[in-house]
Amino acid sequence: MTLTRGFQAHPAGSVLVEFGGTKVLCAASVTAGVPRWRTGSGLGWLTAEYAMLPSATHTRSDRESVKGRVGGRTHEISRLIGRSLRACIDLKALGENTIALDCDVLQADGGTRTAAITGAYVALADAVTWLRAHGRLADPQPLSCQVAAVSVGVVDGRVRLDLPYAEDSRAEVDTNVVATDRGTLIEVQGTGEGATFSRRTLDAMLDSALGGIERLCALQAEALAAPYPGELPT
Amino acid sequence: MTLTRGFQAHPAGSVLVEFGGTKVLCAASVTAGVPRWRTGSGLGWLTAEYAMLPSATHTRSDRESVKGRVGGRTHEISRLIGRSLRACIDLKALGENTIALDCDVLQADGGTRTAAITGAYVALADAVTWLRAHGRLADPQPLSCQVAAVSVGVVDGRVRLDLPYAEDSRAEVDTNVVATDRGTLIEVQGTGEGATFSRRTLDAMLDSALGGIERLCALQAEALAAPYPGELPT
Amino acid sequence: MTLTRGFQAHPAGSVLVEFGGTKVLCAASVTAGVPRWRTGSGLGWLTAEYAMLPSATHTRSDRESVKGRVGGRTHEISRLIGRSLRACIDLKALGENTIALDCDVLQADGGTRTAAITGAYVALADAVTWLRAHGRLADPQPLSCQVAAVSVGVVDGRVRLDLPYAEDSRAEVDTNVVATDRGTLIEVQGTGEGATFSRRTLDAMLDSALGGIERLCALQAEALAAPYPGELPT
Amino acid sequence: MTLTRGFQAHPAGSVLVEFGGTKVLCAASVTAGVPRWRTGSGLGWLTAEYAMLPSATHTRSDRESVKGRVGGRTHEISRLIGRSLRACIDLKALGENTIALDCDVLQADGGTRTAAITGAYVALADAVTWLRAHGRLADPQPLSCQVAAVSVGVVDGRVRLDLPYAEDSRAEVDTNVVATDRGTLIEVQGTGEGATFSRRTLDAMLDSALGGIERLCALQAEALAAPYPGELPT
Amino acid sequence: MTLTRGFQAHPAGSVLVEFGGTKVLCAASVTAGVPRWRTGSGLGWLTAEYAMLPSATHTRSDRESVKGRVGGRTHEISRLIGRSLRACIDLKALGENTIALDCDVLQADGGTRTAAITGAYVALADAVTWLRAHGRLADPQPLSCQVAAVSVGVVDGRVRLDLPYAEDSRAEVDTNVVATDRGTLIEVQGTGEGATFSRRTLDAMLDSALGGIERLCALQAEALAAPYPGELPT
Amino acid sequence: MTLTRGFQAHPAGSVLVEFGGTKVLCAASVTAGVPRWRTGSGLGWLTAEYAMLPSATHTRSDRESVKGRVGGRTHEISRLIGRSLRACIDLKALGENTIALDCDVLQADGGTRTAAITGAYVALADAVTWLRAHGRLADPQPLSCQVAAVSVGVVDGRVRLDLPYAEDSRAEVDTNVVATDRGTLIEVQGTGEGATFSRRTLDAMLDSALGGIERLCALQAEALAAPYPGELPT
Repeated sequence: MTLTRGFQAHPAGSVLVEFGGTKVLCAASVTAGVPRWRTGSGLGWLTAEYAMLPSATHTRSDRESVKGRVGGRTHEISRLIGRSLRACIDLKALGENTIALDCDVLQADGGTRTAAITGAYVALADAVTWLRAHGRLADPQPLSCQVAAVSVGVVDGRVRLDLPYAEDSRAEVDTNVVATDRGTLIEVQGTGEGATFSRRTLDAMLDSALGGIERLCALQAEALAAPYPGELPT
Repeated sequence: MTLTRGFQAHPAGSVLVEFGGTKVLCAASVTAGVPRWRTGSGLGWLTAEYAMLPSATHTRSDRESVKGRVGGRTHEISRLIGRSLRACIDLKALGENTIALDCDVLQADGGTRTAAITGAYVALADAVTWLRAHGRLADPQPLSCQVAAVSVGVVDGRVRLDLPYAEDSRAEVDTNVVATDRGTLIEVQGTGEGATFSRRTLDAMLDSALGGIERLCALQAEALAAPYPGELPT
Repeated sequence: MTLTRGFQAHPAGSVLVEFGGTKVLCAASVTAGVPRWRTGSGLGWLTAEYAMLPSATHTRSDRESVKGRVGGRTHEISRLIGRSLRACIDLKALGENTIALDCDVLQADGGTRTAAITGAYVALADAVTWLRAHGRLADPQPLSCQVAAVSVGVVDGRVRLDLPYAEDSRAEVDTNVVATDRGTLIEVQGTGEGATFSRRTLDAMLDSALGGIERLCALQAEALAAPYPGELPT
Repeated sequence: MTLTRGFQAHPAGSVLVEFGGTKVLCAASVTAGVPRWRTGSGLGWLTAEYAMLPSATHTRSDRESVKGRVGGRTHEISRLIGRSLRACIDLKALGENTIALDCDVLQADGGTRTAAITGAYVALADAVTWLRAHGRLADPQPLSCQVAAVSVGVVDGRVRLDLPYAEDSRAEVDTNVVATDRGTLIEVQGTGEGATFSRRTLDAMLDSALGGIERLCALQAEALAAPYPGELPT
Repeated sequence: MTLTRGFQAHPAGSVLVEFGGTKVLCAASVTAGVPRWRTGSGLGWLTAEYAMLPSATHTRSDRESVKGRVGGRTHEISRLIGRSLRACIDLKALGENTIALDCDVLQADGGTRTAAITGAYVALADAVTWLRAHGRLADPQPLSCQVAAVSVGVVDGRVRLDLPYAEDSRAEVDTNVVATDRGTLIEVQGTGEGATFSRRTLDAMLDSALGGIERLCALQAEALAAPYPGELPT
Repeated sequence: MTLTRGFQAHPAGSVLVEFGGTKVLCAASVTAGVPRWRTGSGLGWLTAEYAMLPSATHTRSDRESVKGRVGGRTHEISRLIGRSLRACIDLKALGENTIALDCDVLQADGGTRTAAITGAYVALADAVTWLRAHGRLADPQPLSCQVAAVSVGVVDGRVRLDLPYAEDSRAEVDTNVVATDRGTLIEVQGTGEGATFSRRTLDAMLDSALGGIERLCALQAEALAAPYPGELPT
C-alpha cells in the first residue's frame, strides 16, 4: 500500500491510496460551523461519502448522479466510513467545525472500502493539522488513536487477507474489520453470502485482520512523519 | 417473543413477530418467474424490503415514499435481511420462482432488524410449504436450515441480549448476529459508535448471541409445528 | 366492523379497523407547533397520509418508497382523508399543535379509504383526549361532530353498501360518501368508470350511504365509551 | 365560453377554451398502438394530463418539472379528466390507438378542471374525425355521447354556477359535476372544506349543474358543426 | 414575426411570439424580494425557465414533470435565456425585486429558443414599466439596450436565417446569435453536429444573423410603442 | 499541459490531463452493442458524461448523486463533450459498438470543459486502437481528425488564452472553441455575462483560440506516438 499525501490542492487533507489494483482518492474538507441541528452545542461534526467513478470497474458502471439515486451499497459504505472515523476523533475538541471525508474510487480491484478507511484516516490527520495551524480547534489534540481497516476472506477453505477482486468474488466468507493502532475493534462485519461459517473461522479471520491492521498503522505513521504537504501559517 | 402465523390473508407466508415493545409484520409473497437477468437459469430468487410505519417510533418519523427516497439505514437493513435468508435456501431447488420478503415495523422498541429476520424465516417456511403444496418447487426441500438473529449490546460494561430502545441507545457497543439452528454464523456486525471494544468483549457478545439464537430457533420450530394457516390443495 | 383502540404504543391515538377482509391501522401523532407558514396564527393543523403495505393486496404491489414517488391514487386518498377530518375539528381550539393521521392498509379487500376515514376519526378523538389531559388545547372541545365514511356501489343494477374487492371491481358506479353523525355531508364522490348513471341512482346510493354512516357513528361512539387506552396525567 | 378549434397545428385535435378569465389549451394527440400491457387486446386507450403554466396564476407558481414531482392536485385532476372522457368513448371501436389529452392552463380564474373537460371533449371529437378520415378506427362511431363539466359553489348561502377564483375561494361547498348531453352523470365530487352541507344543498347544486352542462353541450355541438380545422385525406 | 402583448392577465409582462409555425408564450412575473443568498445586497435578480408543451411538437413529447426531471436541452436553453436577458438589465437599478421569465412553447417549428429570447425582452420591458409605475425600481431606467436573437444555419452549403424545423434538422451547421440593438454580441453558439465548418462560414453566418437581429429590434420597438396593455396606477 | 495515458487499468482508453491547476481524468469505455433505438442500424454510438469530485473545487461542492439530480451546468458540458467528439468519428466505421467517455474533474482551476475535450480525444484514440486490435471495427479508420478545445477570455480589455479560475471569474467575455487539427471549427460558444462584446473582439478571441488548439493538437499527436499503454492481442 502506498499513501500519497497532498494529491489535491484544495482540501485540507487529500490522500491517494494505492493498494494492489485499487486506487482511492480520500479528501478531508473543512467547513466552519456544523449542521443546523448541532449549532450551539460546541461539538464538531464528521461526515463521509463514498463513490466510484463509472470507469473504475472492470465493466463500466452507471453514474449514480445520472440514475438520480444513491445505491444501497454506496449508502452502506458511506455510513461505515463515517462511523469508523468518528471513533477516533473527539468532536468536542474539534469545536464547531465540519469535516467532510470524500472517498472516490478511481480504480477498483477489491477492498475499496477498507482502503478508503485507511486513507481517510491520513486525510483526516492532515485536516486536523491544518485546523490546528489556523487556530480553529477547541483543543489541540482531537485525535485519540489511528484507524485502519482490512478485509479478510476464506477462499477454498483458507483465510486470506485483502483479496483482489477476482478472488474476493469467489470467497465463501468475507469479513471487514476496522480497528485502532492499539488493537481494539471499531467495527466487525462478517458475511457468508450463500454459505455459513463457524466461530473458529471467525477467530482465524480476526487474527489475520488484526495483524494486517497493525502493519497498516505503521505505514500511516510513516506517511504522516513527513511534513504537511501544503502551506500553513507559521 | 410471540410468532403469529397467518396474520395477513393474501401472501403465502405472513407472520406477526412481537418481542418486547417491538412488532414486525413479515410477509413472504410468491411470484412465478424471476427477474429478467436471471430468466432461463433454472434458479429462483429471494429479495427483501424493510420499512417502518411513520407511527412506529416514539416520535413520528417521515414517510420515505413522501420524501421520495429510501434512507441509508433502510437500504442497509433490507440488504441484510435478503442476504441472511438467502443463506438457508437452495435457489436451484426453489425453481424459477421469486419470493419477496416484506418486513414492515408496526411498532419499534429496539431490535427491529433481528426480529424481522427471525420472523421472516417463519414466513419463508410457510411460503415454501405453499409452493410445495402447489407443486411449484423444483425440489421439495429447498430450506437447508433455520435462520434467526439477535442483537447484543454492552451497557455500563455488561453484555446484554436484545436491549429495548431506551437502553440500546446508551449501548457502547452493538452487535447483530445472524446464525442457524446448527450454531454456524451467517452474519456478524459489531459496531462501537463513539467507542472501541476489545476482542474479549466481542467473544462475550458472541457467546450470549448464540445462546439466544438457539432459543429463538426452538420457538420457530414450535410455531411451525402447527399446520399451515391457510388453505392448501390436497 | 371492529375498532381496536391502542393498537400501537407510541402515537397519541392508534386504532386498528377491521371490516370484512380489510384491515387499516390508523394513527394520530401529535407534534407541538405547526408548519412554518402557519406559525403565530394561533391555529393548529391536521394532515393525513394513506399508504398500503406491499403485502396488503392479493398480488404484491411495489413499494412507493422504492419507486421514489407517491402514486396518484395514494395522493388523492391522502388529501380526501385530510379534508374529511378537518371538517370536524376547530383548528383554533386545537391551538398551535399538529396532528398527523397515518392510515396504513395492512390488508385490502375493498373500501380501504372509507375504513381509513372511519378509523381515523377514532384515533383523532383519542389524540384530542391526550392533548386535553396534557393541557395543550386552546379550548377543551375542538371536535364538533363525528365523521365516518362508506362506499356504495351499483352491481348488476342493484345498490350495494361496502362491497368487497371482488364485487367492487365489477361495480358500474362507485360512490364514496363522508358524512357526520348529524347526517350532514362532508364529501360525495360518485364515479361511473366506463358507464354513466342517473340522478335517481345517485339518490338511492346516498340513501343507502347515510344509513350506513349512521350505524358506523354508533360503533365509533361505542368504542370511544371505553377509557383512553394508555396512561394519562391525572 | 368560447371554443377555438385548431389552435395548434400538430395534434389531431386542439382547442382553446376561454371562460371568464380562464384559458385552457386542450390537445388530443394520436399515437398508433397502445401501452404494452394492453397490446393485442384490440382495445384502444385514452389518457389525460393536466398542468398549469407557472404564469397562469395570480401569483406565479413553481414549475412541477423543476420541483421534480407532480403535485397531488395535478395528479387528481389528470385522473378525473381521463376517467370522464373514457366514459364517452368505446375503446373497442377506437381500435389499438392511444389518444393523449393534454390540458394546459394558460390562465387561471376558477373552474380550470371543468373547462378542461369541456374543451377536451371537443379536441377528442376532432381526433376521432382525424382517425376516421385516415381509416384507422375499428368502428366509425366510437363516441357514444358528449361530455361537459361545471363547478357549482355555495357562497353566502346561495348556489352559484362557475364561480371566478375570487368567489370560489370563499365558497362553503364546492361541487364539480361531469355529465353527458343526455343528462346522465359521469362524476359528482362535492366537498365542504371546513364546513358540512345538507342533502338539500346537494340537490340544489345538482339542479344548477345539469342546467349549465346542457348549455355547454349546445356550445360544443355548435363549435363542432364547422368543418375539421385542418387538412384531411379525401 | 408578430408580438402580441398582454396575452395573459396575471404576469406584469406577457407576450405571445408567433414566428413561422412557432408560437412561444413569454411571461415576466415580478416578486418583491430576492433569493436568500442575495438578500440585503441591494441588487435584484432575473431568472428564466423554458419549457415545451407536450402537444407543441410534431410527435407528442413526454411531459418533464411526469418524468420527474428536466432534460439537458431544457436546462441549457433556460440558462441561455437567463444569461441573455441579464445582459441588458442593471440589477442595481432593479432594486431587490425578482423577475421570473417563463418561456413556454405552445407550438414548435424551429427557432424556439431564439423566438423565446426575442419575446422575453418585450415581456421584460413591460414588467419594468409595471415596476416603474408602482414606484418599485431603485432607478427608473434599468434597461440599457434591447436584446433579440436569431438562428442561422447552413443547408446545402448556403447560409440561411431562421430555418423551419424540416430544414433545420438537415442543417450542417447551426448557430444561435444573441445581440443588442446596437449590434454588439451577447452570445454566439455555433455547432456543427456531425460536421465541421470554416471560419469563413462562421463570418457569413454572423453577417446574416446581425442583419436579422436589427430587423427584430425594430419590430420590438414598434410593438413597445403602444401603451402598456394593462392597468397602471397614475 | 501533460497527458498521461493508461492512468486507469480497466477502460480501453484512460488519460489524465493536467493543465495549470486543473486535473481531469478522461476514460473511454467500450461496450459491444448500441442503445436499443439504434440496434440493427449498423452504426455505433458515442456518449459523454462530465462530473466533478466534491473535493475538486476550492470550496467543497455537493455531490450530485446525493442531491438526486444532475445540475444544468453538468448536463450542458456533458452534451458539449459528446457533440464535439462525435464530430471526429465515423459511426459507421465504428460498427455497432458504444463508446462512453467519462470526464471526471479531480481538481478544478478553470478550463475544465476544454481540458476534458482535449483529453477525451486521446482516450478515444486509445479506445479505437483497442477496438481495432480486437477486430471489432467495421472499418479500420473511424477517426477523421483530431479534436481539441481551449477557452479564451477578455480580462481588462485584453484577450487571454486559458485563464486560471481566479482570472476566469473576472473575465468580461468567455469563449470556448472546439476545433480540429485542420483548423476547422466544431463548436464556438461565446458568452458575455453581464457585458456585451464587439465582433472585433470575437475575431481576436478566435485568432487566439485557433493558435492554442494547433499547439494542443501537436501535444496530442506526440502523446499518441508512444505505444498503446496496455496489452493488445497480436
